[in-house]
Amino acid sequence: MALKKLKPKNLWAVDIDKKILDKGENLKIIDKGYLNPEKPLKNSDLVIICLYPKDTLNFIKSNIKNFKNKAIITDVSGIKANLVKEINLILRDDLDFIGGHPMAGREFKGFDYASKDLFNGANYIMTPSNKNKSKNIKIIEDIIKAMGFKNIVKITPERHDEIIALTSQLPHILSVAMVNGCKVKNIDSFIGGSFKDIIRVANINSKLWTELLINNNENIIEKLNIFKENILKIENIIKNNNEKALNKLFENTRKKMEENIK
Amino acid sequence: MALKKLKPKNLWAVDIDKKILDKGENLKIIDKGYLNPEKPLKNSDLVIICLYPKDTLNFIKSNIKNFKNKAIITDVSGIKANLVKEINLILRDDLDFIGGHPMAGREFKGFDYASKDLFNGANYIMTPSNKNKSKNIKIIEDIIKAMGFKNIVKITPERHDEIIALTSQLPHILSVAMVNGCKVKNIDSFIGGSFKDIIRVANINSKLWTELLINNNENIIEKLNIFKENILKIENIIKNNNEKALNKLFENTRKKMEENIK
Repeated sequence: MALKKLKPKNLWAVDIDKKILDKGENLKIIDKGYLNPEKPLKNSDLVIICLYPKDTLNFIKSNIKNFKNKAIITDVSGIKANLVKEINLILRDDLDFIGGHPMAGREFKGFDYASKDLFNGANYIMTPSNKNKSKNIKIIEDIIKAMGFKNIVKITPERHDEIIALTSQLPHILSVAMVNGCKVKNIDSFIGGSFKDIIRVANINSKLWTELLINNNENIIEKLNIFKENILKIENIIKNNNEKALNKLFENTRKKMEENIK
Repeated sequence: MALKKLKPKNLWAVDIDKKILDKGENLKIIDKGYLNPEKPLKNSDLVIICLYPKDTLNFIKSNIKNFKNKAIITDVSGIKANLVKEINLILRDDLDFIGGHPMAGREFKGFDYASKDLFNGANYIMTPSNKNKSKNIKIIEDIIKAMGFKNIVKITPERHDEIIALTSQLPHILSVAMVNGCKVKNIDSFIGGSFKDIIRVANINSKLWTELLINNNENIIEKLNIFKENILKIENIIKNNNEKALNKLFENTRKKMEENIK
């Protein structure tokens, strides 16, 4: 939907679900939908693969002969280090793969929850390498900006996975742990905004998040350890009734929020 | 603002800040504001004390002679067990104190962030005792419903503190621990919805939350332990690359969300 606003010459979609392709065509979100990727791939200058990480690799593998000469390929996978490495091992020399991660999602999946405004004001992480052509990086950047993203950062795939363990995967783990720790009957009557916010993403896409977390486990364990240290710090202060220390910790937290997060 | 919509015969406010009282009068949110509580208290059938827990007790103590005969007193404090006990120790026999906790707040404080719609659809917890007159409980309930609250539950002050440790205080602790664990430069460029949601309340009112947490430390430690067990469970699954167990845990979490939280 966000791409359609940019009025590309041709916007084709490949999916395994004919009904969704028909829906996309009928709503004029895509120009044409295909179950078989061969034809659209052979004619596409830019391919955006929106699949789970392993499926992204498998799609490129099984279609390696179908991509148009010198096509740009990008993805939306939430983990990058291993994926980019493995893609580069099998990629044709003329093709240019540039890793991408739109930092915007919903706690629901599927076409029915699509929105042309989801990306407005969101962050986008790119993981280009020195193998990528700079004019191709520029093309991707221009498209991303035009789609509504506010902020594009370029980092290595390894740094991406390290940061994302903290800014996306840890919040999902906390959310799931909160929900699993709830044993209150009729809890719905006792919750306020802070609880609702924290548990929102516990309505999780199990298959996707299992893959994301298992594949980034070392970074996650590291971030979890830092988080647990901070929890323990607060716990000890509360245990010792240390009002002064708790107040100071809260003041420092507020300052950190003001300085770092808009 | 939400009370004004109910068109009470007189709506008076007591505050230590003359400017805020003037603002309330000028905007016609209150009929009259007072720095000295004596006169409005002597003429009020219902008093809603909106102060921090200790200040709530101190206000009642220092004004114990000022309350009108048979007045109903309620509060909005986020902790209840000790407070209700101590209030009952000093309360005049003709007065009826009924504990209340509106489960709606914002991560900002002060009059400028007031909204007449804040309570719409929110939960309200009452902690009445068998000392309270049932007609007075009914009066409070009717007002709460008319103010926009969706759901009123009545529990003991002790049960309130136990549940609130999980549904309000734990989310605030996680939020603060997350922010304190962040050491990424320009983190603002790497965050998505899940992170933003979890850190929202870390912009915390230090004085209030220090008081709330220290006064409910036993319940909080208990809930923190359950939470930490759940974190450890997920951590071990991730460490062992146990895709099957992680997928199952996520599926169970989703089911729990669907069954318990609207």
